[in-house]
Order: sequence, then structure tokens, then C-alpha cells
Amino acid sequence: MGLIAHPVTEDKRIAMRTLKISVAYEGTAYVGWQRQPNGSSIQECLEAALAEIEGATVSVVGAGRTDSGVHALGQVASVRLRQQIAPDTLLRAVNARLPSDIRVLTAEVSPEPFHVRFDATAKSYRYRLAHDSVASPFDRRYAWHIGEPLDHTRMVEAGRALVGEHDFAAFQATGSSTQSTVRTLFELTLSRVPRDPKSVAGGAGAALTLIDVRGSGFLRHMVRIIVGTLVEVGRGQRDRTAVEHALRSRDRRSAGQTAPPHGLFLMRVDY
Amino acid sequence: MGLIAHPVTEDKRIAMRTLKISVAYEGTAYVGWQRQPNGSSIQECLEAALAEIEGATVSVVGAGRTDSGVHALGQVASVRLRQQIAPDTLLRAVNARLPSDIRVLTAEVSPEPFHVRFDATAKSYRYRLAHDSVASPFDRRYAWHIGEPLDHTRMVEAGRALVGEHDFAAFQATGSSTQSTVRTLFELTLSRVPRDPKSVAGGAGAALTLIDVRGSGFLRHMVRIIVGTLVEVGRGQRDRTAVEHALRSRDRRSAGQTAPPHGLFLMRVDY
Repeated sequence: MGLIAHPVTEDKRIAMRTLKISVAYEGTAYVGWQRQPNGSSIQECLEAALAEIEGATVSVVGAGRTDSGVHALGQVASVRLRQQIAPDTLLRAVNARLPSDIRVLTAEVSPEPFHVRFDATAKSYRYRLAHDSVASPFDRRYAWHIGEPLDHTRMVEAGRALVGEHDFAAFQATGSSTQSTVRTLFELTLSRVPRDPKSVAGGAGAALTLIDVRGSGFLRHMVRIIVGTLVEVGRGQRDRTAVEHALRSRDRRSAGQTAPPHGLFLMRVDY
Repeated sequence: MGLIAHPVTEDKRIAMRTLKISVAYEGTAYVGWQRQPNGSSIQECLEAALAEIEGATVSVVGAGRTDSGVHALGQVASVRLRQQIAPDTLLRAVNARLPSDIRVLTAEVSPEPFHVRFDATAKSYRYRLAHDSVASPFDRRYAWHIGEPLDHTRMVEAGRALVGEHDFAAFQATGSSTQSTVRTLFELTLSRVPRDPKSVAGGAGAALTLIDVRGSGFLRHMVRIIVGTLVEVGRGQRDRTAVEHALRSRDRRSAGQTAPPHGLFLMRVDY
């Protein structure tokens, strides 16, 4: 089966290119980014669509894993292809084969060497909290509905304690095995926005809280535990000191609840 | 069976009140507002939830019918109930019994006499056109994806021809039987908006066109035929003169295509 005995195959190998794609998806119907035995994953759908184009099995690597129910506006993934297909043609061909809740937004030939996970310098996530008195049908898959108002100032104050380089062991799903739990949170921004009257779920007086984080990388459930902790702060059940204590403790039990997945969006991956 | 022979029943009848409710729903999973033999309707879901509270069958009347796949942010409906339940209690009780894609937003005791359909003075609808080069997974149920840019100025100009009192016979689904096809369109506004970067489907450069109409009433498919016609204008296939001609013709064939239902939202009903 040696490649040297099959020069044509060999030539094709030499021509193999890495394509970098950005992907948007609604996570509702999926077990998450990564292949799982118990259901459909985003990775698997992309691999199936790309395999049809390649005429062979392909392997899609993502910049980060997203949990079941978590959405993405700008996940980044790479795939190595023999097909010398123009990126724009690939974009149309792959979208024609994907379910409508997954879309490849851009495709380009990546510089070599390129590793979609290890070369990422930052990731940005957004979490959406909805404060309508009655949960909007249009946000039921895209926001955590918290009917009561939260103390925004307290949340901003407590959020500051998390920015910077810290050991985030307390903000990691229990049972995770990671070599290091030190991560750098570059930014954490809380914005309270009136609903855009021009958006689908517009309406007077209603409001969202957006929690935007940008960091070097995130532990499993880290964004959701940060959000769950800040919501407890907003409800007056914790304060900044308690958040600082949780960080120092390195103990999952001293941080807050894990916010539900459906309010979370992977917004961007930087290289 | 006389009511006079049953004074208790008689008392209950006197105590019956009409409740006016506003309702938001995502129409994707439904055959439309109105009961149909072939699937679940919004009306039916509301009647089932309210019947549990009333302890008897109830009849819910809507201000207007919406087609299968059409959404509402502010449908208005009425229901007559014997239960002397406070409107706020009713609101919570009914929402607890409704599927999450239907929500009662407000409930109040209506003045008597009140007819939710005949007393309506205006209805407002919004249609959303999405112009992203790749259709966003987050708009696939909430906008008609038209990848190419449309000639906005031409559309505004042609839209003006429709404002006012006209015989809209050409803008009615074929096979409809309506006594009069004269309606007054108070307003038709086209707005081209950059996506709010803070909305779910945010993204640089992408844009929506919103078509807002407010009228005394609308014929079956009227908003969707107006939108389909204006899109043909935006593509350069028609102009204002052709729209005026379609109006005068009273012939469905001289107006444009019927836009798909999933971009349409019943926004408000005025009394």
C-alpha cells in the first residue's frame, strides 16, 4: 500500500491544503461541537458535507468545543483537502449540503503550518440574559430568561475581580482533567441594552443584559459558571469578595451555578 | 333548560367577563392562528390552556388570522370567562400551560361591549428581508433570505403607490371570498438597517430590510403579496407604474409573487 509505489497518490498528497472556515450554528438540535455517541454533532455534520465534496473521509478540527445547546456566530475550524476547489466554490457547495442550522460563513486557504486550536490567541463569547416579565417565544432558545431585574453595578464590580490571569479551577466543570487551570481573561463587559425595537423580539421597556468575555482560552463550562456566579451577585446573594474568595479557593463548590447553555454564543476566535 | 329555573347558573352568566389578551408566538410549528383539521393552531393551544383554568370549554377569538409559519409579537384575542380570576394570575396560569413558543404578554378585563375583530382600528405588520451573503442560521425562521442587494429607492417609490384607500383585489390570495376588497393602507415604511452588533445574528456589513405596514385591515396574503411585489421592484423586474397597473387591474396575476410566511410578524393591533 506504500505511497511511493503510487506516484499519483503521492502527487495528490503534496497538493493537500488546509482550509480555514468560520462557522455559525444554532446549537439547539446538537449534542455540541464534538462527535458524541448519543446524537448529532456540528463537527460530524461538517465532516459529512465536506466528505461529499472531497470524495473521501475528512477530519474537521475546531478552535474550541461548544457544549450541547451552545451557539456560535464565529466558530473557526480547519480541514485538510486534496480537492483543489476554490474557497468560494467550497463555501457554496458545503452550505448546499449542510442543514440550515449550520452555515459556513467564510472559507480561505490557511497559511502553513496552521493549527486552528493551538494558534488561536483569543476567544470571545457572549451570554444573553433576558429580563422581559414574560419570556419571549423568540428568545427561548437564545437567552436565559431572568424575569427580575439584576443589580447591574454589583455585577460590574464583581466581574472586575475575574479579569486578568487567574487560576480558574473553581470555574471549571467538576471532573474535568486539564493540565493547567490558569487562564487570562482579557475583558469582561456587562451591557444592559434596551431591546432594539427593530429586532425580532422588540418591545418597549424590555431589556437584555449581555455578558461579553474575551480570554486566552476557557475551561470547560467556565463562561457559564462565570455567568451563573454573576447572576447570583446581581440577585444580591453574593458580592465581589465572595467571587474573589471563590477564585482563591480553587473549589468548584465556592463558585455559583452553571448558567444554561442556550444563552451562550461563541462569537469570534482570534489568530 | 331555562336559565330562569337555575338561578345559580344565571348568577354565573351575569358575572361572565371578557378578557382581552395580547399574544406573542413563533408560528413555525403551527398551521396558523385558526383551528385546522391538519395540525395544531395557536387558537387551539390558547383554548386548551384557558379551558383548564375555566374548567369548561372556552372560545378564543383573534383580531386577525395569521397563516402557517407567520409570527406575532402583538396578536390580540378575547375570551369570555366565568372564573373571577385576576388578570395577572390568569397571565401566569395560562403561560404555565402553554408551549414555550406561545406566550400571553398582557391580560386585562375589556370594556363591554367589545369585539376584538370588529373594534380593531388598525393592524401593523412587519416583514423582514435578510441580505447576508450566507443565510444566518438565526434568521432561517424569521426572515426571507435575499442574498443580493435590492434597489431600495425604487422600492420606496413603488411602495408609495400602495398607500391610501385602494381596491386591493390584485393583492389577495386567489380563491378568497371577501365582500369588499377595498382597504386603507395608512403607512408603508421601508428601512434598511445594519444588523445590530448586539443582536443574536449580529455581524459587520450584513443588513436587513424591514417593510412595515399599518392598515385598516388586510386581505388574505395581502402583506406577503405586497412584499413579493416590492422585492421584484427591488430586483429591477418591475417599477412603480407596474404596481399602479396591478392595483387598477384588480387581477392577482398582475401583482408579484407571494413572499414566504416566515418573514412576517403581526406586530400590533390598535383599538
